[in-house]
Amino acid sequence: MISRVLSADLPEHVGEHVTIAGWLHRRRELKSVSFLIIRDRAGLAQVVLPAEPAGPELASPELASAALAGEETVLQVEGLVVANPQAPGGAELTEPKVTQLSGPAQPPPFDLYRPALTAALPTILDHAPTTLRHPKLRAGFEIAAASAAGFRATLDRAGFTEIFTPKIVGSATEGGANVFSVDYFGRPAYLAQSPQFYKQAMVGVFERVYEIGPVFRAEPSDTARHLAEYASLDAEFGFITDHFDVMAVCRDAVAGMVDSVRERASSAMQLLAATLPEVPAEIPYLHFSEAMELISAATGEDVRDEPDLAPAHERWLGEWAEREHGSELVFITGYPLHSKPFYTYPDPERPRSSYGFDLLFRGTEIVTGGQRLHRYEDYLKALASRGMDPAPFAGFLQVFEHGMPPHGGFAIGLERWTARLTGAANVRQVTLFPRDLHRLSP
Amino acid sequence: MISRVLSADLPEHVGEHVTIAGWLHRRRELKSVSFLIIRDRAGLAQVVLPAEPAGPELASPELASAALAGEETVLQVEGLVVANPQAPGGAELTEPKVTQLSGPAQPPPFDLYRPALTAALPTILDHAPTTLRHPKLRAGFEIAAASAAGFRATLDRAGFTEIFTPKIVGSATEGGANVFSVDYFGRPAYLAQSPQFYKQAMVGVFERVYEIGPVFRAEPSDTARHLAEYASLDAEFGFITDHFDVMAVCRDAVAGMVDSVRERASSAMQLLAATLPEVPAEIPYLHFSEAMELISAATGEDVRDEPDLAPAHERWLGEWAEREHGSELVFITGYPLHSKPFYTYPDPERPRSSYGFDLLFRGTEIVTGGQRLHRYEDYLKALASRGMDPAPFAGFLQVFEHGMPPHGGFAIGLERWTARLTGAANVRQVTLFPRDLHRLSP
Repeated sequence: MISRVLSADLPEHVGEHVTIAGWLHRRRELKSVSFLIIRDRAGLAQVVLPAEPAGPELASPELASAALAGEETVLQVEGLVVANPQAPGGAELTEPKVTQLSGPAQPPPFDLYRPALTAALPTILDHAPTTLRHPKLRAGFEIAAASAAGFRATLDRAGFTEIFTPKIVGSATEGGANVFSVDYFGRPAYLAQSPQFYKQAMVGVFERVYEIGPVFRAEPSDTARHLAEYASLDAEFGFITDHFDVMAVCRDAVAGMVDSVRERASSAMQLLAATLPEVPAEIPYLHFSEAMELISAATGEDVRDEPDLAPAHERWLGEWAEREHGSELVFITGYPLHSKPFYTYPDPERPRSSYGFDLLFRGTEIVTGGQRLHRYEDYLKALASRGMDPAPFAGFLQVFEHGMPPHGGFAIGLERWTARLTGAANVRQVTLFPRDLHRLSP
Repeated sequence: MISRVLSADLPEHVGEHVTIAGWLHRRRELKSVSFLIIRDRAGLAQVVLPAEPAGPELASPELASAALAGEETVLQVEGLVVANPQAPGGAELTEPKVTQLSGPAQPPPFDLYRPALTAALPTILDHAPTTLRHPKLRAGFEIAAASAAGFRATLDRAGFTEIFTPKIVGSATEGGANVFSVDYFGRPAYLAQSPQFYKQAMVGVFERVYEIGPVFRAEPSDTARHLAEYASLDAEFGFITDHFDVMAVCRDAVAGMVDSVRERASSAMQLLAATLPEVPAEIPYLHFSEAMELISAATGEDVRDEPDLAPAHERWLGEWAEREHGSELVFITGYPLHSKPFYTYPDPERPRSSYGFDLLFRGTEIVTGGQRLHRYEDYLKALASRGMDPAPFAGFLQVFEHGMPPHGGFAIGLERWTARLTGAANVRQVTLFPRDLHRLSP
């Protein structure tokens, strides 16, 4: 391994000769001195090029080639670490000996060293392998990774088992629409829209399971928050009393994600001037019917018969929760049964409502969850009442004949979460290589 | 949440009244006493039913229904914990009050309480949601989950960033064969055979990345070790000297997986009478050419011109490493360049050999990896020398024009690893819902 010190660790090596390595982020030529700014995974390091009384000529051919190298050229620099309060991190590398690690680079079509990339989003996405090197673009993904780690750590501590379920399935998960078809050795197959049936079945095996994996939605919607493929943080567990138990675990998972971002990605958050929410010990909740009453009363538009929340309603409720409860998170409970999937548990007291919920974060739905049916007969009834054929679900329903505890779960969309957390206007900005109606590459 | 004590924790509650909950694993009726064995995620608990002098009649209707409930019925049992060295864990529940949590279950078509399921593998897989409840089947997945956790923990500590790359891709990853086709909003697309190009590109952003996700191979091979979809533990990182740096990180990842299984899944390992390998500080390695010489000399069969190892050769080398180095793990380095993908780095000293390697564990390949090309011109040359059109790779190659450090990586097949670790003869036994040439459900 190339033995080196990371940029962020330079201040610990003042007075020593060390080697750093990274990308030539930018060259700065001032009147009396020139700098190379080297970018590595930990940040930026400043390298001072020797001042030449006679002008731009440099001490050695290596230095000349380094000084003339295009941005993004990969360099290794050996030198003496000197404290300098003006340098990033308070130390810089002097008396440099520079080596190119992979030949000169073509300067990319973007100035990666500028505070922000000014290109339009489609252009940025077309060049993702390069544009993602921009510290501000990269930051979103450090936050996403930290979030996923926090989700896992929280559920690991709570006795959950990680599972890996198949993404190629023989029948469409939720009942038909918006699935991608796969040619499976000449037979028709589909991409899983969610691990829903598998995670429920695995409650019968492990009681508590989670999975972080891709889900696929052939959504014709071309909006700032829809993707054809995204990372879903899924959890499902048994022996619950009702959906409030599911909401409690969901709250803990979100709190764990926030803690993990604080611990692991605080400089990324700073770079984006993004702030973490406070996650209350109990996230406030509001019944769907009450939410619709409130919105109707406040806006004058009668939405009491709407089956679901429109984005404008979500925003309104986000502001309401902030105002009334000082919380950036709010659960909406009691969604109309007919607007939720057939496996949703009905509210025994209000049979048109369900034990399904959503979690809104800063006015956007980022989690959907609920208690599920757990009795075989209830599944048959639910399918019949929706006029759905039970045949395609036979394999799934079998497990409920063989003893399933009351259970529920939830799914967090990682990209949506990260977008809300970082203030990204479009979920594609926090997706490494987004897939949508129009985009299939890179 | 149903407030309860897990079976494994009963011994800590001797003398107390507690509630347990789980599946009726089996009923045992002895001459003078009857037991219910309750299975939960932590193990088994024994419940003593009151002895009735007059025969099978029981103290209450609830108890009668519990005693007559089919296996796998979900029960909640309140009772007094009493020490009993004969009971599992040394304690049992007496004076029980039993409640059914979800109605009576249909007994499954398998006796889940027997020491082993005797059905044929296809039958077991057809009924996976139920058969996986068998403690020995379940155990393999606890081991898989612990392995994945160990992989992540090791790479997290080493400064790697977790990434989520797309599984629907616009062009076939490795160049064409064995890909599944997807209908992508009416356009042709494919399922990713690996995150190879994406993880390489992300070395330019994060330097060190890993991903655990599904990969898809439309392999017509119907063997005990091939799957059409499996979980791949992928790592890739930059600033290496050569492939030995990649092997060193791979060694640490495997050691971390072993440590994690030891910490998190030791009872699952015990249940399967499986043993963990010792991972040497340096795993022994053997050059492909020497391996072929050794095999030729030992077996009398001249395999020196073979491009790859056959399964029989892998087994032979596994035994050789055990015998010569006392190691169950052995790296085979220097694979012939033409048998490795076009992005493989050639050995500058032996141009027909490459810096690609495999790791054999107990005589089976479980890891493949190597140093990759990092210069744009080298990619163009490599593609030309193989007669491959660079056009489909244009998006991928772009990143090498903009500065990439020397880098490499590896991929561990989670199911193969788990199969070797647990002694499963078929990789399907350690895959929750396997996908192969013939199997697409459940």
